Amino acid sequence: MIRRLAPVVLASLALSLSAQTTSTHDAPVGGFSVPAAAAEHSLEAQYDARLDRNDLRDWMKRLTARPHHLGSAYDRDNSEFIASLFRSWGYETAIEEFQVLFPTPKSRLLEMVGPQHFTANLAETPLTDDPTSSQVSEQLPTFNAYSIDGDVTGDLVYVNFGVPKDYEELDRRGIDVKGKIVIARYGGSWRGIKPKVAAEHGAIGCLIYSDPHDDGYFQGDVYPKGAFRNDSGAQRGSVMDMPQYPGDPLTPGVGATATAKRLDRKDATTLTKIPVLPISYGDALPLLRAISGPVAPQEWRGSLPITYHIGPGVARVHLKLEFNWDMVPARDVIARLRGSQRPDQWIVRGNHYDAWVNGAEDPISGQVAMLEEAKAIGQLAKEGHRPVRTIIYAAWDGEEEGLLGSTEWAETHAEELQRNAVVYINSDTNGRGFLGVEGSHTLERFVNEVARDVNDPERNVSVLQRLRARQLTTAAAGDRKSLRSQDGIRIGALGSGSDYSAFLQHLGVAALNVGYGGEDGSGSYHSIFDSYSHFTRFVDPDFQYGLTQARTTGRMVLRLANAEVLPFEFTHMADTVARYADDLTHLAASMREEAEERNLEVNDQSLVLAADPTEPMAAPKPETVAPYLNFAPLQNAVAHLQRSAKAFDAVRVNAIAASPNASVNQESLDRVLMHAERMLTRDQGLPRRPWYRHFVYAPGYYTGYGVKTLPGVREAIEQRQYPEAEQQVTILAGVLDAYAAEIDRATALAQGRKE
Amino acid sequence: MIRRLAPVVLASLALSLSAQTTSTHDAPVGGFSVPAAAAEHSLEAQYDARLDRNDLRDWMKRLTARPHHLGSAYDRDNSEFIASLFRSWGYETAIEEFQVLFPTPKSRLLEMVGPQHFTANLAETPLTDDPTSSQVSEQLPTFNAYSIDGDVTGDLVYVNFGVPKDYEELDRRGIDVKGKIVIARYGGSWRGIKPKVAAEHGAIGCLIYSDPHDDGYFQGDVYPKGAFRNDSGAQRGSVMDMPQYPGDPLTPGVGATATAKRLDRKDATTLTKIPVLPISYGDALPLLRAISGPVAPQEWRGSLPITYHIGPGVARVHLKLEFNWDMVPARDVIARLRGSQRPDQWIVRGNHYDAWVNGAEDPISGQVAMLEEAKAIGQLAKEGHRPVRTIIYAAWDGEEEGLLGSTEWAETHAEELQRNAVVYINSDTNGRGFLGVEGSHTLERFVNEVARDVNDPERNVSVLQRLRARQLTTAAAGDRKSLRSQDGIRIGALGSGSDYSAFLQHLGVAALNVGYGGEDGSGSYHSIFDSYSHFTRFVDPDFQYGLTQARTTGRMVLRLANAEVLPFEFTHMADTVARYADDLTHLAASMREEAEERNLEVNDQSLVLAADPTEPMAAPKPETVAPYLNFAPLQNAVAHLQRSAKAFDAVRVNAIAASPNASVNQESLDRVLMHAERMLTRDQGLPRRPWYRHFVYAPGYYTGYGVKTLPGVREAIEQRQYPEAEQQVTILAGVLDAYAAEIDRATALAQGRKE
Repeated sequence: MIRRLAPVVLASLALSLSAQTTSTHDAPVGGFSVPAAAAEHSLEAQYDARLDRNDLRDWMKRLTARPHHLGSAYDRDNSEFIASLFRSWGYETAIEEFQVLFPTPKSRLLEMVGPQHFTANLAETPLTDDPTSSQVSEQLPTFNAYSIDGDVTGDLVYVNFGVPKDYEELDRRGIDVKGKIVIARYGGSWRGIKPKVAAEHGAIGCLIYSDPHDDGYFQGDVYPKGAFRNDSGAQRGSVMDMPQYPGDPLTPGVGATATAKRLDRKDATTLTKIPVLPISYGDALPLLRAISGPVAPQEWRGSLPITYHIGPGVARVHLKLEFNWDMVPARDVIARLRGSQRPDQWIVRGNHYDAWVNGAEDPISGQVAMLEEAKAIGQLAKEGHRPVRTIIYAAWDGEEEGLLGSTEWAETHAEELQRNAVVYINSDTNGRGFLGVEGSHTLERFVNEVARDVNDPERNVSVLQRLRARQLTTAAAGDRKSLRSQDGIRIGALGSGSDYSAFLQHLGVAALNVGYGGEDGSGSYHSIFDSYSHFTRFVDPDFQYGLTQARTTGRMVLRLANAEVLPFEFTHMADTVARYADDLTHLAASMREEAEERNLEVNDQSLVLAADPTEPMAAPKPETVAPYLNFAPLQNAVAHLQRSAKAFDAVRVNAIAASPNASVNQESLDRVLMHAERMLTRDQGLPRRPWYRHFVYAPGYYTGYGVKTLPGVREAIEQRQYPEAEQQVTILAGVLDAYAAEIDRATALAQGRKE
Repeated sequence: MIRRLAPVVLASLALSLSAQTTSTHDAPVGGFSVPAAAAEHSLEAQYDARLDRNDLRDWMKRLTARPHHLGSAYDRDNSEFIASLFRSWGYETAIEEFQVLFPTPKSRLLEMVGPQHFTANLAETPLTDDPTSSQVSEQLPTFNAYSIDGDVTGDLVYVNFGVPKDYEELDRRGIDVKGKIVIARYGGSWRGIKPKVAAEHGAIGCLIYSDPHDDGYFQGDVYPKGAFRNDSGAQRGSVMDMPQYPGDPLTPGVGATATAKRLDRKDATTLTKIPVLPISYGDALPLLRAISGPVAPQEWRGSLPITYHIGPGVARVHLKLEFNWDMVPARDVIARLRGSQRPDQWIVRGNHYDAWVNGAEDPISGQVAMLEEAKAIGQLAKEGHRPVRTIIYAAWDGEEEGLLGSTEWAETHAEELQRNAVVYINSDTNGRGFLGVEGSHTLERFVNEVARDVNDPERNVSVLQRLRARQLTTAAAGDRKSLRSQDGIRIGALGSGSDYSAFLQHLGVAALNVGYGGEDGSGSYHSIFDSYSHFTRFVDPDFQYGLTQARTTGRMVLRLANAEVLPFEFTHMADTVARYADDLTHLAASMREEAEERNLEVNDQSLVLAADPTEPMAAPKPETVAPYLNFAPLQNAVAHLQRSAKAFDAVRVNAIAASPNASVNQESLDRVLMHAERMLTRDQGLPRRPWYRHFVYAPGYYTGYGVKTLPGVREAIEQRQYPEAEQQVTILAGVLDAYAAEIDRATALAQGRKE
């Protein structure tokens, strides 16, 4: 489901290039003693030798041969095929099935009823150049999952991306969407935010269209000449209110097993409040052209050959949507390889296999790389290299609708996972280009070492070195010096958008999300054109980045499975949290200054005087200026965390070198390390969304996929809830103190002291 | 000719709003004693009372009734009409005629010869909604004046704006325009830069098209529904190499009188080196759509519904241009009102009257405001309020082709002007919105006082207060505090683009350029749609900003004509020059840092590693890193200037208050003050362009209209001519020292000391 941004945005990283010349086989590996590291390098060489790009190509062809969305015949067929593969490689394999709510269109109508009549086509046009695009009878029509039924007629208002600040802009112009139908363009936030915010402002319907600026001709030649979205292409996708909770809307917090207690559909809070429909720019053009009223602000204008107006007025549309509110099976394929020595420590690795249509890029590109990884690891196990810890592969179903398969499985197995899961490593779409990693910063150094040891197929340097080159050459001039001097990789924080959410943000299992991209042509996302044909022309034609992905995540799994001591460390996490805490103080200060400046401009009439009297404008109102907040508890907790992290770092290597000296019980140390991330969660969860329990990482309530770090405090400030912000500072400080205490326990164990 | 940018860009200004509440009639006026200021305020009230918007409307209708470009019958007719008006108001009026080279099209052909055939229309489509647009027989066709004749065929390359940094981008991709025809979009620089830079890179022809992003549908509804350029609209304009010298190409530096010695046309260096043609986006679309090759960088892409490719290739065009290389008369209307007491001190005030076609906005909007001003001042003179100093009104011809009328007149009268001219006040197009002023910073305080005393017709505050509100509300967050604390107005520096160039930059006469705009709809610039009909719908429908302009420039003229001592002062100039000097040191430092960083990226392979191997790229080459330059002579001279300016400021008011005490000879002081600006010039002029003699202000050699301050040093640094930069630092320091010494003379006179 996730739409991969250029990895530069997702992760920030720098290792000195000279450090890259170390021979891979001598390089130290966190969690391994020197001799063990040498053995690990040798195992990884054997692992690499087993990877074969022809598998990726064959499996992609097989898995994308027909549309395979959740609940479809071919989705089931694929699950059986994937399960059979795992079994053939020696995994204990089961398909776990859940019953989930999945509405699909019964009828869709969008027509402009004035000033002219126009009926939207609402269909992607199959192309002879792309054989699977003509499998119309099996394709889901273009729609947004978890839109409610509706039959509404209203004037159209163009709301840009439809995020909160766009409505502030409308407010300044005195434009109200109450009783109106809004049309938003894709981009600027996750799509599900658009109908949510529209409904909060009183809109009665929401259209979301793909502006050619976003992934159409503005970006490059359109399909089939090029990779990008053509005028019939529309973006399917879920609009479930995932920032509240993901997964089956009827079973928040518990597994959607056959016998689970379910909400009434009317009580499911993650369905939209208004009907929503995605459309192509071919369908959007007549509507947008007909809108009158003020010209949209410059930043709102897309790449259609029209003047963008805001409305409301002249253009009036009728939107009628009815869905089949069916319960369908979500079938997760779960494959286990039991660890030889520490079987109760689980390395969980997942990638979904369901798609919106044929889904070659999303998700099969990631799925086939993971399968290749599982194949090689299974073969190594058969040949005597069984991992120390247990490895669990999961091919998730129902990700596209709202992380259904992974969420329901994680909720079902919550207790075991909280006890036994070391880490969850996710992947999803994968393409040509640069490494992108986000995740728990306790693994930042670990990621660093893996990226150092994987070769980039295009440039024959490590993927780390190539990413660093990219970051240096694209950084703002002012940032380059610090980027050059920075030691080690920086990974991004996880928001939402793929199957890691339940593990990291609900259960407190350390997680990573890993993939390549940035040089591949986009534009087929969630359309009938995300096909084998498109993928092998524009995304990763030779599957060389599929292989690179397998080399990367395979190393991660093997190192985590085989390390003498789990390679978690805390200084990167502590420094990252310190930066986030700094951000918060700056955020509060800049919001205060902006409100003060705005109030000056209201009071001295500048806002009125500067405005064009021929353009509509609401009378400017003063804002409440934020009070100074007490950040001291947070700052003290961060200082504590940094001290504890440093202390552990000083003894970490000893704990490994000491092995097999019984004075350090490595397994006990592992258990403290793997549970440390849990300390960053609280059972009560975040304000107004208790499913999200992690106090360092959460998807933004108004950004969707976009992460909010230290979310309790940050969102309270952003939403101007200042008493709540101070409460959350105290809560967060408590969380970080407890976390630091857990690190102190690890330090004691690593020193061979009794707990 | 000038295309007015939003005035916020042109001038930066701030006065505390509270200061605006002073009653206009009590407000101090620079150069006037308290009783004289009161009399002046009373005179200005009488002046205002004589202004009548019906005159503006009637004259605009009259002057724009037919096309009236240089050399046309109606241009001559207009000159006689304007002269008759001046005579009727009591001005000694003459028409001074020059003979200038003005090529007009004999034949124009643009066709695509492959991959498909397409012949460009090259014509604007008349509209029934706009009556004068159908006067086809009198309209100049769409063309660029001073393009050479040519008949070329070549592959097309899209070069974005066609400025030097665009060619750097092409270089990085290994794309060469040698032997190719380039197509550039309007914007990013003055149009004449595009063929100049294209020819420097070996191109054989140049097309310039109006992308809808610039002034078409992206900006607003197109004509006739809205103000903006429609798909047949093309932008005429001069492409003479004005940064070398403006005016008649055959008579650089001397007046183009009947008997002047002329260059052979082949020796005229300001003609283009390659044929150039402007086209509409209707004509550009098939060409741009046919170009293949790499996709253009994101910032290069406009608003046409296509993917922008760079080429070269597939699209191949044939461009054939022939011109009638005629000599035509340029007829300046010169009207004098002799000063009663200091007749040898001239206040020169000008606005051109020639247009590309009907020219309602450009230039008649400014012309009619100036005429109204002259009418009222003439009437006041008849009634006994004859000005102390001489006022000269000039209605210039041939501005559009390259400032022909003003330049030839200034060159012809160079000696008198250098002796007698106090100031040149220019205007050109005028529209609805905000005051914009650029010019000599010795008049910054003066402009400030005038803006304080003119009322904005839309918001009923001073135009100063309204502009400040605009600047505050549009400033970057970080700039607002300093803007609020800043005392007084900041005016922009003058580059080129209208008739002030010869006065300021060739003769060293202090100059101002004044106009309103920023709320008017653009898009008719240099087209058949710049008509009375368009103007009265979209630019200044009620002529209220025409009246406001007359109130503004009329005050300027009256105050300069009647002041007891000329209101020049030097602290604003000194502080401005100090800021410019700071800019230079930062420029040198940042260029050095950028070159160092780039060389690091070349040497450590980052540039290669970061690149997509499937995209074309030239091997990156290291750059020469700029040496540290010795700015000390400049810094010392600036310090000297600041001391001298402060010293004069301390005695300035005394010199006025002392009047009529004979110990201060005000007329002698005036002569020093009015000649001070001459000290900023040198007879040798700037490197490689001796016509430009001013060492603080010049149009950029590679920007055209855009100003380069301290141009000798700045352009040497920008063009990496480091030895020349150091020479120019020394020269500039000498100029500033001599200027400071002149200020010291003024101080001595103001103190009643003998010179």
